Amino acid sequence: MENLRRRIQVARGEQSGDLLLRNARLVNVCSGECYLADVVLADGYIAGIAAPGSGYQAKEERDLEGRWLAPGLIDGHMHIESTMLQLSEFARLVVPRGVTAVMLDPHEFANVLGREGIEYVLDAGKDLPLTSYVLLSSCVPASSYESPYKVMRAEDLLPLLSHERVLGLAEMMNMPGVLTQDEQVLAKIEATHRHGQVVDGHAPGLRGKDLSAYAAAGVHSDHECTTLEEARERIRLGMWLMIREGSAARNLEALLPLVHELHPPRVFFVTDDRDPQDLVARGHIDSMVRRAIELGLEPVEAIRLASYNTAQYFRLYDRGALAPGFVADMVVLDDLKTFNVGSVYKDGKMVACAGKLTVPAGGAQMQEAPNTIHIGNLTLDNFKLPGQPGKVEVIGIEPDQITTLHLQEEAPCLDGELIADPARDLLKLAVVERHHASGRVGVGLVKGLGLKRGALASSVAHDAHNLVIAGTNDQDMLHAARALEEMGGGFACVVDGVVRARVPLPLGGLVSLEPVSVLLRQLQALDATAAELGCTLAHPCMTLSFLSLSVIPALKLTDQGLVDVETFTLLPLQRR
Amino acid sequence: MENLRRRIQVARGEQSGDLLLRNARLVNVCSGECYLADVVLADGYIAGIAAPGSGYQAKEERDLEGRWLAPGLIDGHMHIESTMLQLSEFARLVVPRGVTAVMLDPHEFANVLGREGIEYVLDAGKDLPLTSYVLLSSCVPASSYESPYKVMRAEDLLPLLSHERVLGLAEMMNMPGVLTQDEQVLAKIEATHRHGQVVDGHAPGLRGKDLSAYAAAGVHSDHECTTLEEARERIRLGMWLMIREGSAARNLEALLPLVHELHPPRVFFVTDDRDPQDLVARGHIDSMVRRAIELGLEPVEAIRLASYNTAQYFRLYDRGALAPGFVADMVVLDDLKTFNVGSVYKDGKMVACAGKLTVPAGGAQMQEAPNTIHIGNLTLDNFKLPGQPGKVEVIGIEPDQITTLHLQEEAPCLDGELIADPARDLLKLAVVERHHASGRVGVGLVKGLGLKRGALASSVAHDAHNLVIAGTNDQDMLHAARALEEMGGGFACVVDGVVRARVPLPLGGLVSLEPVSVLLRQLQALDATAAELGCTLAHPCMTLSFLSLSVIPALKLTDQGLVDVETFTLLPLQRR
Repeated sequence: MENLRRRIQVARGEQSGDLLLRNARLVNVCSGECYLADVVLADGYIAGIAAPGSGYQAKEERDLEGRWLAPGLIDGHMHIESTMLQLSEFARLVVPRGVTAVMLDPHEFANVLGREGIEYVLDAGKDLPLTSYVLLSSCVPASSYESPYKVMRAEDLLPLLSHERVLGLAEMMNMPGVLTQDEQVLAKIEATHRHGQVVDGHAPGLRGKDLSAYAAAGVHSDHECTTLEEARERIRLGMWLMIREGSAARNLEALLPLVHELHPPRVFFVTDDRDPQDLVARGHIDSMVRRAIELGLEPVEAIRLASYNTAQYFRLYDRGALAPGFVADMVVLDDLKTFNVGSVYKDGKMVACAGKLTVPAGGAQMQEAPNTIHIGNLTLDNFKLPGQPGKVEVIGIEPDQITTLHLQEEAPCLDGELIADPARDLLKLAVVERHHASGRVGVGLVKGLGLKRGALASSVAHDAHNLVIAGTNDQDMLHAARALEEMGGGFACVVDGVVRARVPLPLGGLVSLEPVSVLLRQLQALDATAAELGCTLAHPCMTLSFLSLSVIPALKLTDQGLVDVETFTLLPLQRR
Repeated sequence: MENLRRRIQVARGEQSGDLLLRNARLVNVCSGECYLADVVLADGYIAGIAAPGSGYQAKEERDLEGRWLAPGLIDGHMHIESTMLQLSEFARLVVPRGVTAVMLDPHEFANVLGREGIEYVLDAGKDLPLTSYVLLSSCVPASSYESPYKVMRAEDLLPLLSHERVLGLAEMMNMPGVLTQDEQVLAKIEATHRHGQVVDGHAPGLRGKDLSAYAAAGVHSDHECTTLEEARERIRLGMWLMIREGSAARNLEALLPLVHELHPPRVFFVTDDRDPQDLVARGHIDSMVRRAIELGLEPVEAIRLASYNTAQYFRLYDRGALAPGFVADMVVLDDLKTFNVGSVYKDGKMVACAGKLTVPAGGAQMQEAPNTIHIGNLTLDNFKLPGQPGKVEVIGIEPDQITTLHLQEEAPCLDGELIADPARDLLKLAVVERHHASGRVGVGLVKGLGLKRGALASSVAHDAHNLVIAGTNDQDMLHAARALEEMGGGFACVVDGVVRARVPLPLGGLVSLEPVSVLLRQLQALDATAAELGCTLAHPCMTLSFLSLSVIPALKLTDQGLVDVETFTLLPLQRR
């Protein structure tokens, strides 16, 4: 009650506040206006807002001289793992850009570490200069053909719903599970609703009656729209439209016309997946605000889509706007139209200025990350591919796509064993179960990498994140697996038993402990080395990391074997 | 989980629903559009919405032939007591007009019956064809100079917060209490916030820093704006603007331009106080939608201000729009622009058609209402007004206002007693404490009624609802008090010991047990009789009912004596 008392007294001008921002050009997302005002803060909250020359007093004062003051930006849906950065390093990058809150779906950590993965992300977000909320990853594993650390059932997730920074259930990717009323899926949804929280959606291509059913089940949003028609249908069905602008999937330009036309109350911005290169080059949710303004949206409305609307969807009633009683997460803009950030305030304190954090990034550093790569006594035998001469099912890589082609090719056969044929760009592909050292390895063939010598390996392998390894020979593939085990995960390039390039991602085999500058150099070196070995893809390990994702067409490989995604069945390598 | 299963199956068209509305012209408050659609329901919820000819099946089908289908209307703030009707009779009137939910502040019942008054309203709302939510009356009594049945403290109210139909704290009229951080006021506000519920505001004329403080305290709304400037200031401070159109206080026309200019997300419609004559003549929240459209607002936006926005403010996530997973409260309109209601559906069932309920009004009838009028052995002595010749403080009535004038007049003095002087329109005025038969009576003089003979009495007397009686002689005044006691409250007109007209309001002395038609006849007869006796006011008992409201200027009378509202002190009748 004391904070409330003080807030009232400061607002009335009866006592001085903690900070007074004079002559701010308030970006008011509630009224849709911009105008000059004095803003006084108390205990991290906005207490009073009055016309300039209000006579408000505070311990610290700052004259904004007409600079814009906007609410801090919120990313409504993202996966921190895609940045390959720790939350603290991520904060160092995005807070100076005006981001003060993010909604995280720790889906990859949950696949690798189960409930502890989610708890790690919650802990790591504790002392950051931005608020990191968490939505509980709803679909671990992504399919029964994938082997995560642990299957996450309703009873594993639901205790976390009452955590103060948990806002609900993360993207419900299991659309069939919703439509066929899977017991576990409905249990997760109903428990979340009972908690008064939201269920995020993920419904690529879903239309018509099935989309109605998905909404009727209480899934409140979707971030997978790519066309105006899909977006309009979701708005019409009362769902919240999350306009996504990721590094790969970019939907802002396609969907913004709907905002221009309808100005619907239920729309906001998310980044979903941003890789470190893109984060440095384009930025984060701020890049969406900037682009939306370039595309003709009123600046105040663009900012509303990255603050107020997001807070409303997540039922955060004292965030996303600058008004008395609201949390003082604020961005000072030197220019509104270009969203040129001068300084950033979190809970009423300056945390960034001139593009740099002015406070420690904080967060759990996890320098002693436990090694999550467990492959036991893996041997060359695990990579053998018994077969006979004739056609073989082959995964065909499509450049810049996460989908693959389903090919049939002749593969060389030696003593009842199928082997790689680099001359024809036919490589061996192995997915090694790495959570429980079960020794389970799925082996197949892949075309389209272009590698002429050695092997490439990644412990980032959606969604179960087992080791995916492509190579011209079993020795280098085994060696690459060992290299990953030694690093605690990451990317490796091996030739003739020598590790030529490595990107250590020791946090769950997903995330680096290095600052972004170092990580970018490592990634660059890896791609260069792969290119020297004949690889024709820009980021080959990124491509590898999707070859085991069993819910994206057409042909994928997991530790359980070849998955024909069209028929959703396991496929023998050769037809009898 | 079974309901969720079925809703999904019906939405997918795998099983037939309960009701299918074909060829509806959907009024979509989420997208702001109107278009043709089929709507299928399951278990009181909307399951699926699809283009006409969807092939949806249901036990019952109806072809709307292009008629509009809009969400049921919601009144965001009203006092049922002002209608003088039971909830069931009120429902009979307004549900056929498209109203499917109301937010009630049972402030008068709370003054008369304490916590049981609020519980009565909750009970009475149980089986109605409209959902009656309750906000807990925050300010009983309205001031320390009023004597309600019981002072309502935080601990009396807060147990009710968890009732399924309680949405928060009702209008916080005690602005000084908020601004001076009164312990009880802050306790009520903080407990409501802890419950995740809203605190309604009531801030007539509050501006600048004090309004900031009021908002900073967490009061989320205000329905007392009369000017554009006041309304804009509230929107800018992040408060929700409740645009009110009552029977007396009418603000729609004055405030609508702000909606035209800003289209703010935080605005909706309320009626606050509507008297039975007005309810029958103009209607209810539907009259606001109609008028807003006449004033040029897009029909879909006008309806959004009476449905979706209201539901959003009160955090009712599955109400206020027509979408899968939303409660099927729906209005079929024969014409959109005139909001011409054909039929009404509540929880998926038709409850009204062609202006009439098609189901029982239900609700607790309370035919055996307990008598709440307790005046004990009141005698003529209680009405005596000791004094001497000279000036006397006199309450001056202003026609059609609830404010009064503070007059000083010479009053006739007989044997040390001041008496009425009907020739100069100077009447005796008494306020008799009626909750605990304390025998406490405040006596004074009033000018402006015009009564030449007899007495008028009312048990409706804001806010404590003691008996307020004006008369030309003590005998008739005492007789009128007895008449009210006998009726269990209401209005009475007495001449020469004979009751010439009566309006029984036995429910707490506030509400009638009769149908509206009978009540209107009784009120008409009362006003006619008063007119015969020389009364110059249209509705004299309505005027009486505000003469004891100690928070409205200038001079009022309560059972405790004369209240000078300007100085907020008790005033002696004559200055020494």
